[in-house]
Amino acid sequence: MDNSLIKVASICRHHAQNLATLTSEEKDRAINAIALALESAKAEIIAANGIDCQNAVSAGIPKPLYNRLKLDEAKLNDAIAGVRDVANLSDPVGAIQIHRQLDDNLILKRVTCPLGVLGVIFEARPDAAIQISTLAIKSGNGVILKGGQEAIHSCQAILTAIHTGLAQTNISPEVVQLLTTREETLELLKLDRYVDLIIPRGSNSFVRFVQNNTHIPVLGHAEGICHLYVDKAADVAKAVEIAIDAKTQYPAACNAIETLLVHTDIAAEFLPVIAKALQQRFVELRGDERTCKIIDVGFANDTDWETEYSDLVLSIKVVDSLTDAIAHINYYGSGHTDAIATEDPTTANIFLSQVNSAGVYHNCSTRFADGFRYGFGAEVGISTQKLPPRGPVGLEGLVTYKYQLVGNGQIAATYTGVDAKAFNHQDLD
Amino acid sequence: MDNSLIKVASICRHHAQNLATLTSEEKDRAINAIALALESAKAEIIAANGIDCQNAVSAGIPKPLYNRLKLDEAKLNDAIAGVRDVANLSDPVGAIQIHRQLDDNLILKRVTCPLGVLGVIFEARPDAAIQISTLAIKSGNGVILKGGQEAIHSCQAILTAIHTGLAQTNISPEVVQLLTTREETLELLKLDRYVDLIIPRGSNSFVRFVQNNTHIPVLGHAEGICHLYVDKAADVAKAVEIAIDAKTQYPAACNAIETLLVHTDIAAEFLPVIAKALQQRFVELRGDERTCKIIDVGFANDTDWETEYSDLVLSIKVVDSLTDAIAHINYYGSGHTDAIATEDPTTANIFLSQVNSAGVYHNCSTRFADGFRYGFGAEVGISTQKLPPRGPVGLEGLVTYKYQLVGNGQIAATYTGVDAKAFNHQDLD
Repeated sequence: MDNSLIKVASICRHHAQNLATLTSEEKDRAINAIALALESAKAEIIAANGIDCQNAVSAGIPKPLYNRLKLDEAKLNDAIAGVRDVANLSDPVGAIQIHRQLDDNLILKRVTCPLGVLGVIFEARPDAAIQISTLAIKSGNGVILKGGQEAIHSCQAILTAIHTGLAQTNISPEVVQLLTTREETLELLKLDRYVDLIIPRGSNSFVRFVQNNTHIPVLGHAEGICHLYVDKAADVAKAVEIAIDAKTQYPAACNAIETLLVHTDIAAEFLPVIAKALQQRFVELRGDERTCKIIDVGFANDTDWETEYSDLVLSIKVVDSLTDAIAHINYYGSGHTDAIATEDPTTANIFLSQVNSAGVYHNCSTRFADGFRYGFGAEVGISTQKLPPRGPVGLEGLVTYKYQLVGNGQIAATYTGVDAKAFNHQDLD
Repeated sequence: MDNSLIKVASICRHHAQNLATLTSEEKDRAINAIALALESAKAEIIAANGIDCQNAVSAGIPKPLYNRLKLDEAKLNDAIAGVRDVANLSDPVGAIQIHRQLDDNLILKRVTCPLGVLGVIFEARPDAAIQISTLAIKSGNGVILKGGQEAIHSCQAILTAIHTGLAQTNISPEVVQLLTTREETLELLKLDRYVDLIIPRGSNSFVRFVQNNTHIPVLGHAEGICHLYVDKAADVAKAVEIAIDAKTQYPAACNAIETLLVHTDIAAEFLPVIAKALQQRFVELRGDERTCKIIDVGFANDTDWETEYSDLVLSIKVVDSLTDAIAHINYYGSGHTDAIATEDPTTANIFLSQVNSAGVYHNCSTRFADGFRYGFGAEVGISTQKLPPRGPVGLEGLVTYKYQLVGNGQIAATYTGVDAKAFNHQDLD
C-alpha cells in the first residue's frame, strides 16, 4: 500500500469531518468563493488546458476524447455557472427522515449526513473536476480526484483555483485532493478505510474494471442496454416517434435503446413503418428470424441481445406475449431503463411492476432517464444496481443517514424482563 | 457453477416476479395461511427437531449452539405469533417516495418495490427460517434459505408446513426454497444474476467470510465495537448507570460496549466509581497507562481497542479531549453504535455530528440499537456499512425502488436544442 496516498486520504478525511458540522450557508458561501476564484483564474486554466490539448494532439488522441479534453471559455463559463447552480440547490445534509419518541425524553432521529470521502476517477474531461468538487462540498464530503493523465495541467490549474477559493472560507482546502499518477488509481480502489464511495466516470469497460477491483461501494453503471417493447395494443404512430427518439436522438447515451421488442400481433403493421423511418435516419437494423420474414434486414444473433451498440444500430425481436417481452428484458437488460408502448393500462401496469429496471416507462422515450430531466438539479451518476440509490442519482446519492438517540440517562434494563416498561413509540413532527 | 442450484434460483426468481404484483391483502392472507399451517404441523416440526437435537448431542455440539437449535413448543408458538405480527405490519412495497410532474401528462413516480430474491444463510436456529420466510413474502421477495446442517430435519419440516400454507393461496410455494448441503453455501454466494441480497446470520467470522466471498450486496455486520465516551461535563451517576447497562445487560449482544473512553478531567472522580460497580458485576477491566494510574486494573494493549469481547470484559482509555475521543471511535470503532455521556449540549452535538457510526447516542445506553426498540416492528439485521440501509434494518431493507415514468408519447427531442420546451417540474401530492 502506498503510504503517501494513505496520508493524502487521511488528511482529506480529517478535514472533511469538519464539513459535517457546517451550516448550509457556510457551504454555499464556500461554493460561491470557488466560482469567483475560477473566474479569476480563467486565463490560467485555459492556458493550462492548451498545454494538455497540444500534448494530446502530439500523442494522436482520438477526436472524441480531444473534444472532451478541450476547455474553451464557453465551456468554462458553463462549468462556473454550474457551480453557482449547485449553491442554489437545497442541502442534502440534515434532512430528518424519522423523528420518533421511543419513550418520554428518549428521542430518535434519523438524519441525513455526509458519507465522508468520495473517490472520483474520471477520464479526459477536466470540467468534471469542477462539478464534482462542488457537489462534494455541498454534500459535506471530502473528495479525492483522479483525472486522466492527458488532463493533468488543466486539473492542476483548476485545483489551484478551487484551493484559492476555499482558503477564503472556513473550509480547509485539504478537503479537495488531486492525484496525478496512473498507479494511484489502483491504490485508491484499495483505500476501504478512508474512502466511502467511488464514482468512476468513463467507458463501460473502465467502470466494470473499477467495480471488479474494489470493496468500496461504486456509484455508476457499466452498460445501458435499454429496450422498447411495442405491445399489440400500441398506438403505432406514438410507438414510431418514441422508437426514433430513443434510438437516434443521442445514440451514444446510456439511455438510448439497443433492442426493440415487438408483439407478434402488431409486427406486420409496425415493422415496415419503423424500418423505413429508422433506415432514413441511417440506423442499421438487425432482426431475429421472425423479424427478417417481415422486413429485409440483417440477422441478429445472441450477442446482439446483450450488446450496447452506443451507435446507430438496433436489434429487433418479435415476441409472442408481454410475458416473453418481460422475460427477455429481465434476462438481457442491464437494469437501466425500459419502456412499453401500449394503450392498454393493465398491460402497462404489469410491465411497470415486473420489469426489474431502475426506470420503467410507459408511452415515452427512454431518453428521459436523467437527473436534470427528473428535476434533481444535479446528476452524480446513473446506477443500475438493485439497491438504492438507483437510476439517475442526485445529491442524495452523496449522503447517508445516521440514527441519533438522545436521552436523559435511559438504560435498556428498564425495558426488559418481567417488570419491563413499555416503549411508547410515537412519531413527532 | 452448480446447475441444479441455478435451476432452484431461477425457479424462485420466476415465481417471485408474481409477488411484486400482489396486493397487501393477498400477501397478508398468505402469511396467515403459513401461520395456520405451522400450527397444524407443530407435532411434526417438534419431532423433526428432536432428531436434529439427538444427532447434535451425539456429535458433541456446544451448549449455546444446542440451545439455539432446540425448538420446543413455547419457542415454536412464539415464532408462529411472530408470523402473525408480520402480517400486521404495514406493507413496505408500493410507497410513493417521489410523485412529480415533469411536464403536462408526463408523470414521474419513485415507488418502492421488492428486490427479487433474498439469499439467507443461517446457523443452527431453525426458527430463523420461519421468521425470514415471512418477512420475504411480506416484502414481495422470493427467498433461498440455507440453514445449518445440524438443523436440517427441523428446516425441512418447517419448509413443508410453509409450502402447505402457500399452496392454499395464490403465491407459489416455489418462492421459498431450502438448500440442504454445505457446498451450496459457496455456490449461493456466486449467484449474482439470481440473488439480489445476502443476509448472513451467524458469528462475526462467518459474516466476514460471506462479505469477502460475494459480489452480491450483504446485509449484516461482522463486528460491533461500541464505545461510551464519558465527557468532562458528564453527570457521573447517569454515566455509571449507562456504562453498567451497556456492558452487562447482555454482553454477547453486538450493541454492548467494548471500550469506555473517559475525559482526563473527570477520570479521577469517575474511574473508581465505575470500576467498583463493574467489578461487583464480574467485569474484567483493562486500562491504558493513565487509567492504570488511577485504578488497579490489567493493562490494555492495542489489540484491545479493536476487539469485540462479547463478554464481561471492558477496555478503558483516558483521553484529553472530545476530539481525541471522536478520533479513537472513528479509527477503532466498527460504525455500529457509540454514545456520549455529557450535560453539555454543544459537546453532545459535535459528538453526534462527527462520530461516523450508524448510531450516535447522547445520555442513553447503546443497547437501544435494535429494530424493535426503534419501533420498526421487525429487524432484518443491523448494518455497519456507510451507505443506507444502515443501523437496525426493518422491512424497508428488503425493498428497493424504481422510477416509473408515464407519458402519452413524449420524446426527449421536444425538450432539446434551440426551440426546447421547458420542463415544468412540479411535485404532486
